[in-house]
Amino acid sequence: MNLQPPINDLDQRRATMCQLLHWLAVDRVQPQSLAETYLEAIERLNPELNAYVSLSSAMLQEQALAAQHRRRDGVIGRLDGIPIALKDNFDVAGWPTRAGLAGRRQAVADDAHVVSRLRASGAVIIGKTNMDEGALGATTDNPHYGATHNPHRHGYTAGGSSGGAAAAVAAGLAVAAVGSDSLGSIRIPASYCGVYALKPTHGEISARGMVPAARRLDTVGLIARSADDLTVLLQVLAGYDADDPRSRRRRVALSPPDWEPGRLRAGFLPDLAALGVHQDVITVFEAALANWPRELGERRTVDFSDWDFARTRRAGFLLMEAEMLGTFAADLADTEARVSEHFRRLLGYAAGKSAADYACADRVLDAATLKMRRLFAQIDVLVLPTTPQGAFPLDGPVPDSQADLTSFASLAGCPAVNIPMGYLPDGMPVGLQLVGARGSDLRLLELASVLAATLDVEPAYPAIR
Amino acid sequence: MNLQPPINDLDQRRATMCQLLHWLAVDRVQPQSLAETYLEAIERLNPELNAYVSLSSAMLQEQALAAQHRRRDGVIGRLDGIPIALKDNFDVAGWPTRAGLAGRRQAVADDAHVVSRLRASGAVIIGKTNMDEGALGATTDNPHYGATHNPHRHGYTAGGSSGGAAAAVAAGLAVAAVGSDSLGSIRIPASYCGVYALKPTHGEISARGMVPAARRLDTVGLIARSADDLTVLLQVLAGYDADDPRSRRRRVALSPPDWEPGRLRAGFLPDLAALGVHQDVITVFEAALANWPRELGERRTVDFSDWDFARTRRAGFLLMEAEMLGTFAADLADTEARVSEHFRRLLGYAAGKSAADYACADRVLDAATLKMRRLFAQIDVLVLPTTPQGAFPLDGPVPDSQADLTSFASLAGCPAVNIPMGYLPDGMPVGLQLVGARGSDLRLLELASVLAATLDVEPAYPAIR
Repeated sequence: MNLQPPINDLDQRRATMCQLLHWLAVDRVQPQSLAETYLEAIERLNPELNAYVSLSSAMLQEQALAAQHRRRDGVIGRLDGIPIALKDNFDVAGWPTRAGLAGRRQAVADDAHVVSRLRASGAVIIGKTNMDEGALGATTDNPHYGATHNPHRHGYTAGGSSGGAAAAVAAGLAVAAVGSDSLGSIRIPASYCGVYALKPTHGEISARGMVPAARRLDTVGLIARSADDLTVLLQVLAGYDADDPRSRRRRVALSPPDWEPGRLRAGFLPDLAALGVHQDVITVFEAALANWPRELGERRTVDFSDWDFARTRRAGFLLMEAEMLGTFAADLADTEARVSEHFRRLLGYAAGKSAADYACADRVLDAATLKMRRLFAQIDVLVLPTTPQGAFPLDGPVPDSQADLTSFASLAGCPAVNIPMGYLPDGMPVGLQLVGARGSDLRLLELASVLAATLDVEPAYPAIR
Repeated sequence: MNLQPPINDLDQRRATMCQLLHWLAVDRVQPQSLAETYLEAIERLNPELNAYVSLSSAMLQEQALAAQHRRRDGVIGRLDGIPIALKDNFDVAGWPTRAGLAGRRQAVADDAHVVSRLRASGAVIIGKTNMDEGALGATTDNPHYGATHNPHRHGYTAGGSSGGAAAAVAAGLAVAAVGSDSLGSIRIPASYCGVYALKPTHGEISARGMVPAARRLDTVGLIARSADDLTVLLQVLAGYDADDPRSRRRRVALSPPDWEPGRLRAGFLPDLAALGVHQDVITVFEAALANWPRELGERRTVDFSDWDFARTRRAGFLLMEAEMLGTFAADLADTEARVSEHFRRLLGYAAGKSAADYACADRVLDAATLKMRRLFAQIDVLVLPTTPQGAFPLDGPVPDSQADLTSFASLAGCPAVNIPMGYLPDGMPVGLQLVGARGSDLRLLELASVLAATLDVEPAYPAIR
């Protein structure tokens, strides 16, 4: 029994995962009371936030009790007792996997690979979070399950497609969340909600049991409240899976090439305004980097004049939509309107495209791979805003450019991290993105940790009520 | 000056590459006279065989002279002085790359990656060999450049699409040849012509500067007169190429998992006749394996009942044809009939397919990858005939099933080796195929070498006149 005072509920919900793991270890927090704290907050706040679309308090309490027993017996996992949310495109045995579509009531038999790993690590699975229909979109304004609101301002988008996951973490309704990112679906909502996110190297975390969007782009993504939390989550979830055809046999170090602190070469894009980045975002970005820390090395401007961001985005969307015609064939054929007209119209774009168009779009991925290889021969990390804009009102127009700064890392299979970089004049947060060479995930997170400490952005505590 | 008697022309043309490298090393054969021997034979036999479609004797003699000087100066490459043929879908600086299409007269500026490596190793490039139009087909009956004849019988196909390359090696008009294999294009002609061939692990040899057929299937393939020759060629040509987006970072050993001699588990298909393999081929296959050598370990029957060979083939062809619509867009648009009606009709099949069809076919590759991973957890090597039939008359019908036994290794990215296994009742050769797990190329060649010694198939000397 720890004699120090217990941690109050708000602090339990504002703490990072690493902090909570420490409090759990020294018995200042217990798995059961932690679960109750989160459950109480979800019951109070989710009705207005709409971050979760399925949740079973009985199942959550049962897992927390088991964690409590493991703590007592002294045999615990790496994440034992930590409440974690899952985007609703991952299979959880006994639950339906709805992927933002209606009518999918059938429970699945097996856990997704990441769910098995989470369970084996002792994590407590809270429930499933809202997303764009079929993971196609970046607003989480779902026609069947409603819109998720941004925890920083009601009526504003949380971003998407992993908007429920990002909102849950930002609002203190989950310690961390697992989502998916094919063109930016984990980084965009993290930027809008002011939380940390990692899209790992393609194939680094098995995507088995995740509803595919476009297999060459799909990655399991992570959302948390610090870079160090992301590192721990990655270490638990990454690894080779023989049953995932795209699983990557992990290198020993996860981190070639090695970076010597202070000798880093950080690349910057020459003209963000020309890429359609809003002036407000550029101002926050420049302010954030005004005191570039010496230990992060030299700043270089890189050449992207040969890169067509809009073409990249279109190619990515075609790959996703063409594949979704297969993935959601049964839903599309169903007469009970399981899919919205909007979704049907988006996929209709791909339905009019030929096999040769697909092959041509697929070649853009090869071009992106070569572009990034050449880039990361000159620099160690690319630094840019995560999104061209901040969160916008749910009842306003949706910008086309949301994924323009995130999609090229997806096409090249490179890891990318979002860290909060500050607040826009309207008070909404916006994120900074670090992109690295394939396999450099851990180094990227290390750098994110250093950079976050330097930026010292006011934590988004007001969002956690 | 070596005092042993010189090697006569016929022996120089019947020798393996390793034998020739030894004779060159001890000065019993000289690069210039070797080139002259091959050139004389080509001039004499190629008009009836039609293996080569472009050749410059001046260029060949110039390379041989340079090799002669290097030998004199004592600084030589691994293949120094060895005459090698190239399929006409590889870029050779200063030559057009025709890929079996007409009207492509423009010389290219740069060597393909493999051509640079061959030059750096001192190999003497003889010329470019005939192929199916666009590498789509398996007969090398080219509408623009004529049919290549099988060196074992005039009027019979050499197979394809690397038919010119296989015929050149089988007829003693090249010591070895470099071709391409997307669904069997190197193994099928090797089987029909009675020579050795390797389709390496996908990405093991850079495909930069090779005309793409289907990038996820395309591999640079090797043809030679022994398994050991293939090993030396692989060692010269394999390696990571940052400029090829699909190039594979090579493992240190190239050979996981390791095989302990005598403890090998060799897998066999349960019913070849049901897969459409001709009875004559089955008879030769069974005779060849009647004395399965003990050092090759245990024989097991594997389950392929879940595998649809015809579906695999169709998926592979769709991927090739859809991509070719892009690769050959300029040729197809040209009014001067650069492409035949037959080729146009084949690609017309893909032109009628949608992006969703392509994505669906592409998923068959993932299924093949998983199938092979599971298979190679149970066995170390799969043993089967390379082709369901032997070479057939050029004026007869073309069987649909030519690539049925080769395509699944292509879809799974696995290495496969062809070794001659005997002769059919009509006197034509037919090959045995070994398929291994990705990255096991060198072990597969080692096994091929052991097995070839056991089979002791009469060498195809009559074909070398």
